[in-house]
Amino acid sequence: MRDERLCEIRIVLIGVGNIGRRFLEVLDRKADLLGARYGLAFTVVGAGDSRGAALDPGGLDIPTLVRIKMDGRSVAEYPGRGRQGMAPLALVQQVEADALCEASPVNLKDGEPGLSCIRAAIGKGMHVVTPNKGPLVLAYPELIALARERGVQLLFCGAVAGGLPAINMGQRDMAGATIDRLEALPNLTTSFILDKMSQGLSYAGALAEAQAQGCAETDPSLDVEGWDAANKLVILANSVLDMPATLDDVSVEGITGVTAADLERAKAEDRVIKLVASAVRQEDGTYSLTVAPTPLPAAHPLARLSGQQMGIVYHTDIYGTISAAILEEEPIPSAATMLRDLLSIYRS
Amino acid sequence: MRDERLCEIRIVLIGVGNIGRRFLEVLDRKADLLGARYGLAFTVVGAGDSRGAALDPGGLDIPTLVRIKMDGRSVAEYPGRGRQGMAPLALVQQVEADALCEASPVNLKDGEPGLSCIRAAIGKGMHVVTPNKGPLVLAYPELIALARERGVQLLFCGAVAGGLPAINMGQRDMAGATIDRLEALPNLTTSFILDKMSQGLSYAGALAEAQAQGCAETDPSLDVEGWDAANKLVILANSVLDMPATLDDVSVEGITGVTAADLERAKAEDRVIKLVASAVRQEDGTYSLTVAPTPLPAAHPLARLSGQQMGIVYHTDIYGTISAAILEEEPIPSAATMLRDLLSIYRS
Repeated sequence: MRDERLCEIRIVLIGVGNIGRRFLEVLDRKADLLGARYGLAFTVVGAGDSRGAALDPGGLDIPTLVRIKMDGRSVAEYPGRGRQGMAPLALVQQVEADALCEASPVNLKDGEPGLSCIRAAIGKGMHVVTPNKGPLVLAYPELIALARERGVQLLFCGAVAGGLPAINMGQRDMAGATIDRLEALPNLTTSFILDKMSQGLSYAGALAEAQAQGCAETDPSLDVEGWDAANKLVILANSVLDMPATLDDVSVEGITGVTAADLERAKAEDRVIKLVASAVRQEDGTYSLTVAPTPLPAAHPLARLSGQQMGIVYHTDIYGTISAAILEEEPIPSAATMLRDLLSIYRS
Repeated sequence: MRDERLCEIRIVLIGVGNIGRRFLEVLDRKADLLGARYGLAFTVVGAGDSRGAALDPGGLDIPTLVRIKMDGRSVAEYPGRGRQGMAPLALVQQVEADALCEASPVNLKDGEPGLSCIRAAIGKGMHVVTPNKGPLVLAYPELIALARERGVQLLFCGAVAGGLPAINMGQRDMAGATIDRLEALPNLTTSFILDKMSQGLSYAGALAEAQAQGCAETDPSLDVEGWDAANKLVILANSVLDMPATLDDVSVEGITGVTAADLERAKAEDRVIKLVASAVRQEDGTYSLTVAPTPLPAAHPLARLSGQQMGIVYHTDIYGTISAAILEEEPIPSAATMLRDLLSIYRS
């Protein structure tokens, strides 16, 4: 039963996996609060996964979508509303919606299917919220220009450090400042592994434990070789530092070469080794971008973060040194960032 | 020479002391950047202090204002534009401006002169930015309702923890969440004193050092008895937790009773005593508000903060646990918060 006093926002969701499905769960759990606090009702008019789509202008039932995905099936099996084999892009093109929530798997080769969906949605005048790094790393300047041109918003506060509002702080709260330096621990896997290694495990043992706990992929190279952190640094450079950087601009060293001896030597100097993504302002106003294992002094705001925390530090000229961290024990905060972005757009 | 391509924002500044004067310095230093980055030019059309005012619709010269105040004089002595004895309220009433920057001394008895100036400015349809706790603690619900009614913004991101965007994070980045608990170290003086005491100084010795360094008032009671932290907690409750709290709702205990033995006992348990302002959500949705010396476990995000840092932790249902801290070694960040607020209003 639709409440006529609420403002209805029609959304289409691409990607109903770990992040997308949990986003739906958050939406469902928060429906009453969103109505009462903000006067908003979000209706899912379309959802697409790798096998097909479901669409209904009157709104899909969120618990049904969640149950289908929990059963390992495709949204294409949504009773009476499913479309086997319908591609995400076709769904975005066909559906009438106000906003695209793009949570398809991260693809750093060509950004698909997210990139095309985002382009199409912006082209149709839809707002876009996404934690998907791929399209942002590959096409940030193009997508932001397109959004400006069409007068819509492209928000992605979940793309850098899970639920931590690292980008929002940089874009909004550092307004007017010159950011002299930025340091981030945006990758949980490497923090977890280094944490375990500092407790005495070998690199291989720590990696195995990370994999067993689901915090490292079977092929961990994206994380342990530093590329995930580098991707996030590219997004920070583009969105916060106003520098149209690409991966080619980042000097990247992962943690695979970090030894027990390195960790012990750091400890003896009251330091902790973390995989730090940093941007240091140069005289010409651009930033030197680096991802590397870095021995941080114990008093450094990022030194004390555990293997379940991500963090960022902004060193500025007029706002002092501001740090922030998140303890994210499950993926709900990362999923909820799409709600945060939607509320940035729609709350009055 | 005015640049015609810039959007001119006319501001009036009440209070040209530690915060107000530094705000002017920041505005001056940032004029080129604000024009280039945001297309904005801020013109100070009026300034008032306790002895008088200066006003010029064409804009007062900021370096002249700063020099007059550095000399210990009143803005009323501004060459050709000064008005001896003109009250702040009269200035606000008389001047044509877009925004009021209110930085008069904190007055927790009746909020004056800030409160009347803010009321008058909002009544005239001006936006207001202020780090002044007095009017907010005494009249938050009234002022916010008035601002809504007039369609203007009342922003005060500097009222709680200096340059830390604690309120912005709470209002914007926790959108959609239920905040289960909030903890803050919003008072530098008590952090400094407890820090020194943990290094072996007596309470009296630590207080004397704080006073010598200018980080405690001659009469330190507002800080050491916990009332400054309580005031900030009231502002957080009203602005972030949506609870129309007053000081009467806060249980307040200062640090005057903290002994060396307390600190040692805490240390033996790997804890650190801090003056924590906390809000804990009750079953009825309201919050239990407390300011008290609290032994924090070493792993607590606020435990490691030094005597020059302020911090906040939000414990939420959907965004995990998010903490933030600022290292503020001089009052520039607190002063710059008025610029942050102005940019929140005027940047497009």
